[in-house]
Amino acid sequence: MSTQPPLLLALDLVGTFAFGLNGALTAIRATRLDVVGVVTLGMMTALGGGVIRDILIGSVPPATFQDWYYFALALAGALIAFALGHWLHRLEMPITVLDAVGLSVFAVIGASKAIEYGLGAGPAVLLGVITAVGGGTIRDLMIGQVPTVLRSELYAIPAMVAATLTVAALGLEIYGLGAALAAAAVCFVIRMLGVRFGLNAPRPPGSAAQRR
Amino acid sequence: MSTQPPLLLALDLVGTFAFGLNGALTAIRATRLDVVGVVTLGMMTALGGGVIRDILIGSVPPATFQDWYYFALALAGALIAFALGHWLHRLEMPITVLDAVGLSVFAVIGASKAIEYGLGAGPAVLLGVITAVGGGTIRDLMIGQVPTVLRSELYAIPAMVAATLTVAALGLEIYGLGAALAAAAVCFVIRMLGVRFGLNAPRPPGSAAQRR
Amino acid sequence: MSTQPPLLLALDLVGTFAFGLNGALTAIRATRLDVVGVVTLGMMTALGGGVIRDILIGSVPPATFQDWYYFALALAGALIAFALGHWLHRLEMPITVLDAVGLSVFAVIGASKAIEYGLGAGPAVLLGVITAVGGGTIRDLMIGQVPTVLRSELYAIPAMVAATLTVAALGLEIYGLGAALAAAAVCFVIRMLGVRFGLNAPRPPGSAAQRR
Repeated sequence: MSTQPPLLLALDLVGTFAFGLNGALTAIRATRLDVVGVVTLGMMTALGGGVIRDILIGSVPPATFQDWYYFALALAGALIAFALGHWLHRLEMPITVLDAVGLSVFAVIGASKAIEYGLGAGPAVLLGVITAVGGGTIRDLMIGQVPTVLRSELYAIPAMVAATLTVAALGLEIYGLGAALAAAAVCFVIRMLGVRFGLNAPRPPGSAAQRR
Repeated sequence: MSTQPPLLLALDLVGTFAFGLNGALTAIRATRLDVVGVVTLGMMTALGGGVIRDILIGSVPPATFQDWYYFALALAGALIAFALGHWLHRLEMPITVLDAVGLSVFAVIGASKAIEYGLGAGPAVLLGVITAVGGGTIRDLMIGQVPTVLRSELYAIPAMVAATLTVAALGLEIYGLGAALAAAAVCFVIRMLGVRFGLNAPRPPGSAAQRR
Repeated sequence: MSTQPPLLLALDLVGTFAFGLNGALTAIRATRLDVVGVVTLGMMTALGGGVIRDILIGSVPPATFQDWYYFALALAGALIAFALGHWLHRLEMPITVLDAVGLSVFAVIGASKAIEYGLGAGPAVLLGVITAVGGGTIRDLMIGQVPTVLRSELYAIPAMVAATLTVAALGLEIYGLGAALAAAAVCFVIRMLGVRFGLNAPRPPGSAAQRR
């Protein structure tokens, strides 16, 4: 990922740390784990989406296994969550904001990396979304929950918007730091509006009776 | 997969659509999902087996990320299930039949692609089965259920028969459209007999007491 | 894996058989499965960690799909568990011992294979652990349980010690049969002490109230 501009790289690192922290906190809240479990799930949340993307585009070993600072930041986030978990719950909003930064940047970087590896526009959008939501999905599977991203909240949809904007900018040859930040910002704003107003993606028609 | 004869390709596309539709319907019935979840699970059911196969044989990016019509058919099936889910329950038998078509063709194509990539007979049979049942297995994991294929019904076994016949026909150098359709037809018949007569694969001896 | 010394290879094969047997037994105890499920889960337990490692280091098709004897031993273990499951419960301690042999050897071989494929020290340790615990993690996911390795017992930690010793020995250029066996022996002893004294990895501070 070292081909990204420095500011985007910095946001990517912030997002990795935030995903590690938030992923580990979510895991601690949901089930009984030991230190191995908390750290593993925090790191899977932070790094899992990128690993799946790299396997799918044929970039192995995945970037995570080569750039030690992603690894270190995810580990740091998870260890902080392990040590300070019961105190961090008070910081819910700042953590949600940082998580939205990660979601946004991961979607942009994931889509642009897929294009760089020669994939088409549709698959690149999908890979941007997978980068952004894949790690949290693995974590939810591991703790025995239907992944949140499949059930409620606006989470995959803002990532898809950012990935689509990224692929469009690359196609129009206007992709650069400005376009990347703009795409990420759109995702961030949609995600935070969703959090603020409790928005959900549409449910299947006629499913109201099954809602409890 | 474009090296397959046109008729087999057509059946493969029918199967992809049927898996997308059936996978999404199964997911809707089992748990509460939004549009992201229904579409994701339908597409995972339709495309997941082939993606796992392609990763394992080293054919990346997977075919699904290159041939947009698989993607489009899986998406169409999942969207139809999302929109018409509560009405489609009346069409259970036609959907089961189409699903069995998909199972049969996926097993044949999966096994022949593995041989094409230089794998041995045993692994090729296994990869045929993985192609056929892998997508449904991922879906069941995602909705928090022990995969149906591991518990009951004749589902993996007909796929294994078809994959074995395919590998044998390739070994005898008699593989072609006729052999492929014959192998798929055997799988289809075993699967439909299993559905008709409620057949199950054997359970561990002495497990009767645990059966409720 | 044929570049390993013969004694290590023999232990690797013992471990594969033990993982197949133990994985299938664990699956039978936990949920209702048919023969497809028992055999699949036994084989996933035995071979899953190595397959994940090989995908991540770019060694595809995975070794398991090329060396038929791993496949055969895992299958044999799973079939014995299927046929004799209710009788094998009396042999719990011998099976736990064999399982610890597998854990130890898988960690050593996994880490050394990662170094052989050019990965750095940190990723190689991680890949050793993944090789050792990945199969059991997949099995637990499939049967709807939060993976044991994330919750309790000393299981990942001894594997991490063995992988670290292996990577250190390779770095010091003293790796050979002696060093490999020593690293595996340390893992084995820690694991068996953990079993004997019921040791667990630390839990998050303040989580006592959630412990039942």
